[in-house]
Amino acid sequence: MDFTLSEDQQAFAETAKQFAQQVLYPHAARWDREHHFPVAEIRQAGELGFCGLYTPETEGGLGLSRLDAAIIFEQLAMGCTTTTAMLTIHNMATWMIATWGSTTAKAMWCPHLVTGEKLASYCLTEPGAGSDAASLKTTATATADGFILNGAKVFISGAGSTDVLVVMARTGGEGAAGVSAFAVPADCEGVIYGKAEEKMGWNAQPTRMITFEDVKVERAWLLGEPGDGFKMAMQGLDGGRINIATCSIGTAQQALNTARNYMQEREQFGKPLAAFQALQFKLADMATELVAARHLVRLAAFKLDNKDTDRTTYCAMAKRFATDVGFSVCNEALQLHGGYGYIKEYPLERHMRDVRVHQILEGTNEIMRLIIGRRLLADEREIL
Amino acid sequence: MDFTLSEDQQAFAETAKQFAQQVLYPHAARWDREHHFPVAEIRQAGELGFCGLYTPETEGGLGLSRLDAAIIFEQLAMGCTTTTAMLTIHNMATWMIATWGSTTAKAMWCPHLVTGEKLASYCLTEPGAGSDAASLKTTATATADGFILNGAKVFISGAGSTDVLVVMARTGGEGAAGVSAFAVPADCEGVIYGKAEEKMGWNAQPTRMITFEDVKVERAWLLGEPGDGFKMAMQGLDGGRINIATCSIGTAQQALNTARNYMQEREQFGKPLAAFQALQFKLADMATELVAARHLVRLAAFKLDNKDTDRTTYCAMAKRFATDVGFSVCNEALQLHGGYGYIKEYPLERHMRDVRVHQILEGTNEIMRLIIGRRLLADEREIL
Amino acid sequence: MDFTLSEDQQAFAETAKQFAQQVLYPHAARWDREHHFPVAEIRQAGELGFCGLYTPETEGGLGLSRLDAAIIFEQLAMGCTTTTAMLTIHNMATWMIATWGSTTAKAMWCPHLVTGEKLASYCLTEPGAGSDAASLKTTATATADGFILNGAKVFISGAGSTDVLVVMARTGGEGAAGVSAFAVPADCEGVIYGKAEEKMGWNAQPTRMITFEDVKVERAWLLGEPGDGFKMAMQGLDGGRINIATCSIGTAQQALNTARNYMQEREQFGKPLAAFQALQFKLADMATELVAARHLVRLAAFKLDNKDTDRTTYCAMAKRFATDVGFSVCNEALQLHGGYGYIKEYPLERHMRDVRVHQILEGTNEIMRLIIGRRLLADEREIL
Amino acid sequence: MDFTLSEDQQAFAETAKQFAQQVLYPHAARWDREHHFPVAEIRQAGELGFCGLYTPETEGGLGLSRLDAAIIFEQLAMGCTTTTAMLTIHNMATWMIATWGSTTAKAMWCPHLVTGEKLASYCLTEPGAGSDAASLKTTATATADGFILNGAKVFISGAGSTDVLVVMARTGGEGAAGVSAFAVPADCEGVIYGKAEEKMGWNAQPTRMITFEDVKVERAWLLGEPGDGFKMAMQGLDGGRINIATCSIGTAQQALNTARNYMQEREQFGKPLAAFQALQFKLADMATELVAARHLVRLAAFKLDNKDTDRTTYCAMAKRFATDVGFSVCNEALQLHGGYGYIKEYPLERHMRDVRVHQILEGTNEIMRLIIGRRLLADEREIL
Repeated sequence: MDFTLSEDQQAFAETAKQFAQQVLYPHAARWDREHHFPVAEIRQAGELGFCGLYTPETEGGLGLSRLDAAIIFEQLAMGCTTTTAMLTIHNMATWMIATWGSTTAKAMWCPHLVTGEKLASYCLTEPGAGSDAASLKTTATATADGFILNGAKVFISGAGSTDVLVVMARTGGEGAAGVSAFAVPADCEGVIYGKAEEKMGWNAQPTRMITFEDVKVERAWLLGEPGDGFKMAMQGLDGGRINIATCSIGTAQQALNTARNYMQEREQFGKPLAAFQALQFKLADMATELVAARHLVRLAAFKLDNKDTDRTTYCAMAKRFATDVGFSVCNEALQLHGGYGYIKEYPLERHMRDVRVHQILEGTNEIMRLIIGRRLLADEREIL
Repeated sequence: MDFTLSEDQQAFAETAKQFAQQVLYPHAARWDREHHFPVAEIRQAGELGFCGLYTPETEGGLGLSRLDAAIIFEQLAMGCTTTTAMLTIHNMATWMIATWGSTTAKAMWCPHLVTGEKLASYCLTEPGAGSDAASLKTTATATADGFILNGAKVFISGAGSTDVLVVMARTGGEGAAGVSAFAVPADCEGVIYGKAEEKMGWNAQPTRMITFEDVKVERAWLLGEPGDGFKMAMQGLDGGRINIATCSIGTAQQALNTARNYMQEREQFGKPLAAFQALQFKLADMATELVAARHLVRLAAFKLDNKDTDRTTYCAMAKRFATDVGFSVCNEALQLHGGYGYIKEYPLERHMRDVRVHQILEGTNEIMRLIIGRRLLADEREIL
Repeated sequence: MDFTLSEDQQAFAETAKQFAQQVLYPHAARWDREHHFPVAEIRQAGELGFCGLYTPETEGGLGLSRLDAAIIFEQLAMGCTTTTAMLTIHNMATWMIATWGSTTAKAMWCPHLVTGEKLASYCLTEPGAGSDAASLKTTATATADGFILNGAKVFISGAGSTDVLVVMARTGGEGAAGVSAFAVPADCEGVIYGKAEEKMGWNAQPTRMITFEDVKVERAWLLGEPGDGFKMAMQGLDGGRINIATCSIGTAQQALNTARNYMQEREQFGKPLAAFQALQFKLADMATELVAARHLVRLAAFKLDNKDTDRTTYCAMAKRFATDVGFSVCNEALQLHGGYGYIKEYPLERHMRDVRVHQILEGTNEIMRLIIGRRLLADEREIL
Repeated sequence: MDFTLSEDQQAFAETAKQFAQQVLYPHAARWDREHHFPVAEIRQAGELGFCGLYTPETEGGLGLSRLDAAIIFEQLAMGCTTTTAMLTIHNMATWMIATWGSTTAKAMWCPHLVTGEKLASYCLTEPGAGSDAASLKTTATATADGFILNGAKVFISGAGSTDVLVVMARTGGEGAAGVSAFAVPADCEGVIYGKAEEKMGWNAQPTRMITFEDVKVERAWLLGEPGDGFKMAMQGLDGGRINIATCSIGTAQQALNTARNYMQEREQFGKPLAAFQALQFKLADMATELVAARHLVRLAAFKLDNKDTDRTTYCAMAKRFATDVGFSVCNEALQLHGGYGYIKEYPLERHMRDVRVHQILEGTNEIMRLIIGRRLLADEREIL
């Protein structure tokens, strides 16, 4: 066992940190307020390689491990949670096209996605099936030269401002085996975007419903083989859960730092908040749980990289724990600021609003518990 | 002991419920979105007596007990947390003028305040002293015929849209004994309003800083005697804590009802959410804690009404517990809605944003723990 | 609403308090250590009426309400948790015989049970059916002049040292409707007592398995009508849950008082523990939750007394919340004592061991959540 | 970063596991019941090297890292918490003698301690100073050829059954700088053992007070230089905290495994407990927190091995988190067993009693929070 970051990891983290603190953090509050999607800054991130972190080098990505990516995303999230979350989704979709795309599809998208010139959305969730992905109803009916896509997807991050949609749709019968994946140009005829959802947070990225009405999908846009879609989606989710977990960790670390500094400065009853024991204890507990969560996420990423048999379980544990701890740390940091935590002049309430959705996304934390519980009770294997 | 509501209490609750569900609830989401202060609806509330609930009948109020008021506010909060919170502040300020005001002050304000025609703000908190009220710095320097007011107050609910300000200012030396209270017309020369704070929630009421620059205050606007201010503020806070606690209880009940209904309707994996045991258990815990909190609040209100020696401790316990439970219930109700909990089409995220500030206001929950802990450790009296 | 104890309630509480502090508390540690069942002291309790608190006056009881009894049991539990728990079981069994017994059965047992001269055990739980009472397997097969009892019951409090057993057994078909209740003399031929269970706590009362081998049961020992047993058991449980909840409340109050006193005396780093803010906050939270739990229990008792439609739900809420809070308060009080909390010279570890079983008994707290959740989701009625 | 155990670590873990499950587990319940100190089995552990895990090879130890030791202790604790805890204390004391002992002292003790032939106790805590070690009052007054030891130590594990005592005593003035450490033969004249403390758990090892009355201590028994004692004690505690944390992790894992198996077997309402979703979720949360805690402990051990600047903070975090999680997991595992969790026929209540003291020992978890909070608030360095 070795808990030291490699020199490369340290260098990447340092680059990400500077980018986050210089390019993202100073504008994050405004992007939230103005519901601005910072496309320019995402492109800048692309220039640093952050748009194709674990996309294979053959397709123009950095070919990093999930653990490397987790370390980088954590730093980025300290600058802007929402933009980083969008970046992680883009990375995942890019990786899916690069891994399972036809030669045509890869050539069409990868060079532009890894640079951030073009952006990708991921379309899995449907109105009637939040957590129950295997029952999705969007259909891709085979035709002579491709498919016709019909159905609706909800809560699509970036929708309306991205260039390609990775869409899960049913090409076969009921259940998981009937699902296929496609890389569909976002401006195809029949792709209809709903209004931007008004959300509690994640305001620096648009979220929309997408309706597909007789969208013509070329055969070459199919990812992998027909029926592979659910398997891909599940593999994607393992990584997606690591990613979203790191977004919580980074944001919580930023909130913790802010609260620490505030405690050193703000005085009440004639002494700094830092002098009050009950608040010291609170800060200590926040830091302890955050450190535990960070390393659980890294452990899961390591297991994913090493194709550990229990990687899905570990990813679920990391996502559940890190997003719960992340919310709780942000919420406590807000409380430590008193009234100032509640107003938008300070970043705390935004941190809390932004990380709240991580407990819901990429499979709710209830679904995580289901996954973990099932593995534990499945058979007589040792418990992890 | 008798836990039954009296017929009068039931009738008041029923009236409040109808008002809340018909007049407040249908617009609450819009008021939040548009940052609209619903003055017209507050006046309607005034017509029902809700602007002077525990103001003495001699001054035009209903002369109800704090327990009665708590029962009513709880129902109102089910319609709109923020508007109800503003109503509770208005009730408190009105009661202070009616209780300690000079004949002039009472005549000047009470008839208009109890009807909701005019509104009152309460000005205690200062930039440098959130929880440490005794150290406030605003001064009211005695002159021949009154006082000159100088200083600044922050986080003033309703500021800029109300008619009278109950202001705590220093007329004497340092500490609690030097503080006096005044009822100051909101449009006096030298009363300067800051910009509306951008807040996480409580958007249906404006919150502003107020600066007092050489404001001329008439002698008759003094409440009680010079030096009585801190005592009044503390008495006001006992009731204020009950009030804000009820706002959490009502909102949480509304969130719980909404989540229950959603669980009965929403299907996942082929059955309603209501059929999933882990979610049933979650709902059960939410309800249990909410019921416990509700009755702790009523107990504290009862003790306040009966001038129990330990009323301040009980009010602190009720405020701490009810606002923590209220937040937690709203947060869990949001989670039970999955992605729909996070968007503004549903009321959950608003409930959560609105009640969050109750853990901070009227003395943070950390200050509540201080008050309770001190009482417990003060001497050898039995612990409650 | 009125939260004041009546003069009678105050007088009963005072008597119970003196009995608890003078007769129970000084010996409780020894009874735990020596596994001594304090029959003599239970008889003393009987002299004060504590063995038939809510048994009707016609049968020699005090005819008090459940709320009255809760107030009394709470005081008793401050003296000895285990003895009080045994008393509550005895009270319940006595009340069942007094309520549903034949004239013969009542005459046979009530006069001796209400005085504590004779003691009663309650036999519901079976090895294979902890929480699933309706599936019990013990049979009472009808004969010409009575029944023949066969089967096994586990975790029977007082077994081997009591005089009468209230036994639930199956006289009819499967499910709840086939269950009947009997008052069986503890020394009948064929009643076989297992070894005393070694338990974590509750050591001042023996717990044994009881096996019934062809036990002849007279017709007159049947309580109510054949098939009434499950209904009786459920009614008994409503009250039993209130009772066990009060045992947690009383013990936790005693633990809290002990911790408070310790904090005032024990010095570390040159000042009393009471001077450390984080410990003050901890004590404040313990007290707050305890007060909330106490009043939830009283509310449930009140609803039981008044045959409120939702009384079973309220009793379940009270049991769940009060036993969880009770354990947590005892556990925290132990922690506040540091190493001294862990040794038997101090009462803390015993308090914690004793209340731990309350989260399991009379329906586990998981069963409580089931009951509450079901009610909340049953239909469209308002949520409590 | 690399989360894989090395082959050596796996081999050690496997050996420890077999020893734990074959030699310790089958007797642990009896040792608890009979308050038996398993000296023979500790010697067997010594034969496997477990009595000098991180003692340098030059002194006969295995010279392993703290991380290696943590992995081994975790497995041992799965067999018997208390015996393993005693082993960790013995390892720490042995390491102190081997590291700071004079040639004489090392020769006198190390060969016998690393084999488990002789055993060591660690004497730091005093009656008046649980957590405030720097204020200890035991004195070692310098004489011509050594010291005279006077004072009292409490809660000494193994006292009365061990051979050498590592004692902290004051040779100089007040405060930390006046403390020195000694290796004192346990049978010296004037070393007086108190009665065995009756404890909640940890019954497989005796705990006694030790009084030193004019004990003649040879100069050669001094460890390091006069005044080094407090520094040694603090260094010892870093490792001691890792050790006790692993004892919680191992015990909790054993409890979790037991609960998992029980859930697969035990039926209620016609299906195994494993089929109830709320219980699945509970198990999932237990496992998740346990895995997070395990890796936090390993991280801290790694930092200790690598003399990281923040190692003391990490050890405090690991101890706080792992002992809290360990208790909570054991407590939940007990609850999952219902009534069977409460009786001594099953191991759950013992696990819970045994790990409870870990939240108190080696610095209470409150002291851990103090250490962590101070580091976080000390200056402007990055927060971990």
